[in-house]
Amino acid sequence: MQLYTGNGKGKTTAALGLALRAVGAGKKVYFAQFVKGKTYSEIEALAQYLPAIRLKQYGRGCFIKNDPVPEDIAAALVGLEEVKEIIQSGAYDVVVLDEACIALHYRLFSIEDLLKVIDLKPEQTEVIVTGRYAPQALVDRADLVTEMKEVKHYYQKGIQARKGIEF
Amino acid sequence: MQLYTGNGKGKTTAALGLALRAVGAGKKVYFAQFVKGKTYSEIEALAQYLPAIRLKQYGRGCFIKNDPVPEDIAAALVGLEEVKEIIQSGAYDVVVLDEACIALHYRLFSIEDLLKVIDLKPEQTEVIVTGRYAPQALVDRADLVTEMKEVKHYYQKGIQARKGIEF
Repeated sequence: MQLYTGNGKGKTTAALGLALRAVGAGKKVYFAQFVKGKTYSEIEALAQYLPAIRLKQYGRGCFIKNDPVPEDIAAALVGLEEVKEIIQSGAYDVVVLDEACIALHYRLFSIEDLLKVIDLKPEQTEVIVTGRYAPQALVDRADLVTEMKEVKHYYQKGIQARKGIEF
Repeated sequence: MQLYTGNGKGKTTAALGLALRAVGAGKKVYFAQFVKGKTYSEIEALAQYLPAIRLKQYGRGCFIKNDPVPEDIAAALVGLEEVKEIIQSGAYDVVVLDEACIALHYRLFSIEDLLKVIDLKPEQTEVIVTGRYAPQALVDRADLVTEMKEVKHYYQKGIQARKGIEF
């Protein structure tokens, strides 16, 4: 199980790159995006060029302010249930749980529930979890952890998020 | 200019993800790999699914031990010259210089030469540089810097690099 966390840019993009590399090696990839629910350029790219990667979003697509609404929780729980079946089936070589740490951060589901799902994985299935604020229990469970540390960001200079670069 | 450095897994994969996202937004991508020269799964994926991303390798494809041989230097210099023309032309929206920091580390070219090439970029061109051991002058020049920090790696547990996951 691989975990990409930290406050720097590059977590979801690294998971996308891993997905791309995996299909290049003939592997099957399931890419679950928690919290997210908008159209991102990566989704257009996958749909257009890489139908071999199955991507599904389990979020309302708007940032959660303060407390999540019931719809946020419902979407995340549907996602966790579907991912559980996907992982258990062994039908996918790589299963990405993009922004699952954010779902944890907003208590859309618990770390115990997430670990239970991860524990169901067949040995050969690679599970990739991303998102800032990874709890220590997830770090402990992971076989590989990279912390993406923001050293410098152009947002600080007032540059807005750009289509095809940030989303 | 974006810089992905540090000793953790995820630098080249993040650049691949950025490339994927960019083509999803209809952008043109040039992906230059320094030092590398082997067939990686990402190359198979790009060739098979994403011909819109032009990838070229400028290395002999074997790890440099101790000192680089003249062929390593020659390959990197050809790469820097080609990338210079690519950047200057403005024909590509995103230009990736994968492992350029490793090329710097082995003194295949100098930081001054690299900065001169980067300085030629039209404003709208996004340049992505990756590789561990980024020198401070490159950090200073970058608009965005993420340090990929290795917190934990399964190599430590004796797990070998796997096709479709690491390469």
